Amino acid sequence: MHVVITGGGGFIGNRVARELFRRRQLALAPGQAAHIDSITLADLSFSPQARAGFDSTVSFVEADLGDPAAVDALFSRQPAAIFHLAAMVSGEGERDFDGCLRINLDGTRALLEAARRSGLKPRTVFASSLAVFGGSAMPPVATDATRQVPQTTYGMTKAIGELLINEYSRKGFVDGRAARLPTVFIRPGRPNAAASSFASGLFREPLAGVECLLPVPRSVAAPLLGYRRVVENLIRLMECDGEALGDDRSVNFPSTRFLISDMIQVLEKVAARHGIALGPIVDRPDPIVMRIVQGWPVGTEATRANGLGMVADQSVEQVIEDYIEDFASGRKADVKG
Amino acid sequence: MHVVITGGGGFIGNRVARELFRRRQLALAPGQAAHIDSITLADLSFSPQARAGFDSTVSFVEADLGDPAAVDALFSRQPAAIFHLAAMVSGEGERDFDGCLRINLDGTRALLEAARRSGLKPRTVFASSLAVFGGSAMPPVATDATRQVPQTTYGMTKAIGELLINEYSRKGFVDGRAARLPTVFIRPGRPNAAASSFASGLFREPLAGVECLLPVPRSVAAPLLGYRRVVENLIRLMECDGEALGDDRSVNFPSTRFLISDMIQVLEKVAARHGIALGPIVDRPDPIVMRIVQGWPVGTEATRANGLGMVADQSVEQVIEDYIEDFASGRKADVKG
Repeated sequence: MHVVITGGGGFIGNRVARELFRRRQLALAPGQAAHIDSITLADLSFSPQARAGFDSTVSFVEADLGDPAAVDALFSRQPAAIFHLAAMVSGEGERDFDGCLRINLDGTRALLEAARRSGLKPRTVFASSLAVFGGSAMPPVATDATRQVPQTTYGMTKAIGELLINEYSRKGFVDGRAARLPTVFIRPGRPNAAASSFASGLFREPLAGVECLLPVPRSVAAPLLGYRRVVENLIRLMECDGEALGDDRSVNFPSTRFLISDMIQVLEKVAARHGIALGPIVDRPDPIVMRIVQGWPVGTEATRANGLGMVADQSVEQVIEDYIEDFASGRKADVKG
Repeated sequence: MHVVITGGGGFIGNRVARELFRRRQLALAPGQAAHIDSITLADLSFSPQARAGFDSTVSFVEADLGDPAAVDALFSRQPAAIFHLAAMVSGEGERDFDGCLRINLDGTRALLEAARRSGLKPRTVFASSLAVFGGSAMPPVATDATRQVPQTTYGMTKAIGELLINEYSRKGFVDGRAARLPTVFIRPGRPNAAASSFASGLFREPLAGVECLLPVPRSVAAPLLGYRRVVENLIRLMECDGEALGDDRSVNFPSTRFLISDMIQVLEKVAARHGIALGPIVDRPDPIVMRIVQGWPVGTEATRANGLGMVADQSVEQVIEDYIEDFASGRKADVKG
């Protein structure tokens, strides 16, 4: 089978690609794993790291999902499965309303239309977000049944994406699923324009020995999910039985609610164990980031996702250990030596 | 002030126009009624009846809201208030997916974009629908906080319209409000392609002495609102203080839950009083209409609308009496004579 991953140059998309490349199979019917013959990653651009480590079964398409012709071209190899992860992120969406609608709304619609025209009824996993929730009547913990009153342009486009995924699935044009992602951590590389970027920077910058500017108070709690679990759960959502989802194709992903102050304590403990000298964490409140982040739910209930076998992290500690293993082993002192 | 009404050739849009034409004022700030200088009604076409009874302050624009240039032209006279009621209805939307997205989604977005470009921040009332609710997890009675899992293309486009109204309001591009209309009765004229059309036909056809084919079982209950209340409540929503709506600009309209069998009894009573010989009501179940109608909530809770002073009908009897007075007085026997 052929698999398409939009946003394949981004952190999660690229990790999904690596996991599928490692497994070399997907089970779109229960117990019937099929071989993955090829994977196309689509994104605006790819870093050398994003291209590294694959073989010729993986292709890289540099394309703008706001361009319908580019979206159409993704269907030339008849994908049976599509991970649609490309999006403009929350902070950037607040600054660029038109771009956010073009990429997130028009891009998603163009993808679903191309899927419909293909006649393939592809299995399609769409990355939604907890940012679909918001507003003064929002309960502190969002469930799968919580009404969506997003308070960012990004969240609004994601809520519309969920409605489109449901409708295109109901009509039989795709077999769609939407994952409401909590804040994903720890993203490697550089800070991005997502308002939740601090939840990665909080670990990444100190572990690299550089300063972290913390834009929100340490008393803030956020629903987090480690990147390894995000990737596993996205693949599980792709493989799960559509009947189990019924007429509502969107699920809250599991998350764990952590206080920033607690996370910093765990970070210090792990760093000490590895002999890593942490860079400083400096409080630098940013009203725009605070407004966005404090408008999101502080926790989620993921009853449906749990029923599908999806899991949250055991601990923040484990996610930090994963991150050091995957991305930061260079700075680890040889404490055993 | 100038007022624009899209769908102004339709029943509700035209009734709103007549009520505004009668009042000649709107109070967009509390206690500050302003004179209505002119009204533009936009629709695909207008019947002679829809054009009758107005003076030169009312203009008729025959336009397709799927055409952005036509939408732009509606802003040439700088409307301070827009009733956006034009839409493809539920039954037609199930048959014409692309048309439904073009008219209801692209049309609404084009209107909001034109409003944004105008810089006028117009007060904008959007007609949403209870069809935004649905799905196997829907509670029987939908509240303002009920998650929206529409099971029709029409309902999906209305749910997206609500999200756009919220977002364009949050960004300060318009001062938007969305009315989730229940089934409106009694519509005059001919049956239309709305799945809820039977709730009008049930009264209209027998009162006209012709046969009514009833597509749903008599045991079905539906949340109904008489057309006079719909018009009053739409104007009230236009005039209400935006602060009272907060960050969620959509409200369930009040409705009353009636059983079809009960409605038929009341109809017979009113007809007897007026000496009207009713046409027969013939059960002719239609699986498509039944699926759509039975997918909607059987009742609504309209806490927020009630708080804004909106009301439901006193009785079915009163709505039938209104209808006879407005549209069917010709068939009334002179029982007093």
